[in-house]
Amino acid sequence: MDDRDLATEFATMAAMARSVAPALATLPTATKTAALHHAAAAIRDDRDAILAANAQDVAAAETNGLSGAMLDRLRLDPARLEAMAAGVEAVAGLPDPVGAVIDRSERPNGLVLTRVRVPIGVIGIIYESRPNVTADAAVLAVMAGNAAILRGGSEAIRSNRAIHAAIERGLTAGGLPEGAVQLVQTTDRAAVGEMLRAEGLIDLIVPRGGKNLVARVQAEARVPVLAHLDGLNHSYVDRAADPVMARDIVVNAKLRRTGVCGSTETLLIDRAFADPLPILTGLLDAGCELRGDADIRALHPDILEANDDDWNTEYLDAILSVKLVDGVDAAIAHIAAHGSHHTDAIITGDAATAERFIARVDSAIVMWNASTQFADGGEFGLGAEIGIATGRLHARGPVALEGLTTYKWVVRGTGQIRP
Amino acid sequence: MDDRDLATEFATMAAMARSVAPALATLPTATKTAALHHAAAAIRDDRDAILAANAQDVAAAETNGLSGAMLDRLRLDPARLEAMAAGVEAVAGLPDPVGAVIDRSERPNGLVLTRVRVPIGVIGIIYESRPNVTADAAVLAVMAGNAAILRGGSEAIRSNRAIHAAIERGLTAGGLPEGAVQLVQTTDRAAVGEMLRAEGLIDLIVPRGGKNLVARVQAEARVPVLAHLDGLNHSYVDRAADPVMARDIVVNAKLRRTGVCGSTETLLIDRAFADPLPILTGLLDAGCELRGDADIRALHPDILEANDDDWNTEYLDAILSVKLVDGVDAAIAHIAAHGSHHTDAIITGDAATAERFIARVDSAIVMWNASTQFADGGEFGLGAEIGIATGRLHARGPVALEGLTTYKWVVRGTGQIRP
Repeated sequence: MDDRDLATEFATMAAMARSVAPALATLPTATKTAALHHAAAAIRDDRDAILAANAQDVAAAETNGLSGAMLDRLRLDPARLEAMAAGVEAVAGLPDPVGAVIDRSERPNGLVLTRVRVPIGVIGIIYESRPNVTADAAVLAVMAGNAAILRGGSEAIRSNRAIHAAIERGLTAGGLPEGAVQLVQTTDRAAVGEMLRAEGLIDLIVPRGGKNLVARVQAEARVPVLAHLDGLNHSYVDRAADPVMARDIVVNAKLRRTGVCGSTETLLIDRAFADPLPILTGLLDAGCELRGDADIRALHPDILEANDDDWNTEYLDAILSVKLVDGVDAAIAHIAAHGSHHTDAIITGDAATAERFIARVDSAIVMWNASTQFADGGEFGLGAEIGIATGRLHARGPVALEGLTTYKWVVRGTGQIRP
Repeated sequence: MDDRDLATEFATMAAMARSVAPALATLPTATKTAALHHAAAAIRDDRDAILAANAQDVAAAETNGLSGAMLDRLRLDPARLEAMAAGVEAVAGLPDPVGAVIDRSERPNGLVLTRVRVPIGVIGIIYESRPNVTADAAVLAVMAGNAAILRGGSEAIRSNRAIHAAIERGLTAGGLPEGAVQLVQTTDRAAVGEMLRAEGLIDLIVPRGGKNLVARVQAEARVPVLAHLDGLNHSYVDRAADPVMARDIVVNAKLRRTGVCGSTETLLIDRAFADPLPILTGLLDAGCELRGDADIRALHPDILEANDDDWNTEYLDAILSVKLVDGVDAAIAHIAAHGSHHTDAIITGDAATAERFIARVDSAIVMWNASTQFADGGEFGLGAEIGIATGRLHARGPVALEGLTTYKWVVRGTGQIRP
């Protein structure tokens, strides 16, 4: 596709999204809920077609030599498809954020002010090989009253088209306007550039994928981006930590699932903590590779030597860097120097120390006596998440429906003029 | 100053701001309040020095042929200086947003989640000739727990240096760390570019000034921007409007002050409204130039002809474009096509029509039976404002202390691990 055709295709999609956004913004909750249930049913109805399209994607990916992990993310099966449909229904069951009153005040002159949640407008979602994002992201955007433009990975294009066709049929059957959710049909990477430069057409870009994708989006975007960068998370075991709790939390925080963004990547242990060895052996026995500073290596012969890069590495694997620090302030300083502002935890029985850590660690999520693996919209009770934002503006941490809205000020008067 | 020196100067300032931001983030409210009172006192103490510096700026500006309006914005006098000091004290009296709990939930596993307001970090403020912004913006940023880097207009540099010196002395006397508020000392325009590209050093840029400044900031910024663009505001007089209320509101909305962003620039009148003439004569009698479509011009001989540009023009002057429309939906459509998402008002006695307008007009502020001139942080009870945001993300409408904060998630557990 030449650049002009691509620009024309994108302009048509963007105009469609803008034109339906006002209608979506004022839909009754019941209409959105019903439409999402229709979409879930359509996914189930189209099961064979979606799985057949996915099999073609998987076959092509195998021919192209995709890695096992990428193939796994790409592959659908009946269970995953059912989970996708159930996920759509779960979003349909969430409270509608649109129209919620954030606050209300009455001025001395009688003006009544409210701040009311409204959709953002048009949301662009750029993602990689996981076709389930097509469903997850689309219904989150729509439930929050937004139009969505989806751009998935080229290796999943057949799957995405099939899922999108089902969702679109379901949503329109449920009473939503056509064009509420559109899928970029071309696999040309230049389409991403069109989305990133679509100032005034797309209100927010949500990238979902690896570091390279997010970095490209942040570098090129002229549209605001809700980005999730690294999860270089720390667990800090304070001198006042319960030893058994510390071991259990740290082993879980690192090893429950090593590939998720909430996993702990660096363990900091207070030099005054009585007995770090059970934590280290707990990790080693569970198959974790440890890379420590000299103090830590002196504690166990199987601990490898950490180099400077280790303190800045998100392993997403069964590897953990470990360091002794001089108390909570040294832990806070290490996190400030090396963390990614995602999720950091302290394990301590001392409430004052915990509150010091909570106040001073500048991360989207700060935890006390809990596993960093809880960093997840579902675990936070949000019902779903479109991502975990590591930036500082608009929304931070797990982003679900509320993060896909903004607000307007409504001023109700009785004829007031300003003196 | 060559580019390398400039980059070095800026890097030093940015490093200073980043280094003091954590301390500012955890200051007790009483310390911030006391520091702001010290700053107000320092402004009063330095009155003669500030006015002398300002007189030099004004003399230079006159030599350089600055316009009368710009000279007026630049000029300080004892009353304006006192207003500046009083403004600092007013911010000191506002509730501290930092530490406020936005919401709290308890999960079935016993985890207690709160979202807590925290400062954004380092805020860059880029402004033009009004030296009072040096004080206003600095103390709003600091009261919200942020470090600030200020870059004012070159024509006000002597005034800004004098005001900044007073504020800095006051804040440090009150217990704030040095470097909490820094002023870019060079008048080289390249310094603005340094700020706009300072990803990771500055967390948010707030431009305060005319369209050209804001447009440059938006075009070049790699740092998030909280921008205020045009205030192309509409007042719509519905068929069910009270005629006297409509006339009084419209005359006020246009003419109370024509140069403010909340002034009405286009008047839409429902074709079914009984008697538009008193509104038009009210405006004409008060000295307003009217530019109307053919329907409107037929009503009064002194109304000029509006051309297509008029519907897209923010006059900031005693000029108003006027159009007859076919009811509330036509008004909503006109505003969608021509508005700037700032402030739009409906005047009607019909609640259902008002709520239709409120729900469908996509502006930061939507008003019913009130003058658009109320679009102001002070009038909204926010105590002050750093600007009125016309974007859709993070903060919308008048932005005061809350808009200069973000939040973190705090998760308190008792040893929970994720299954």
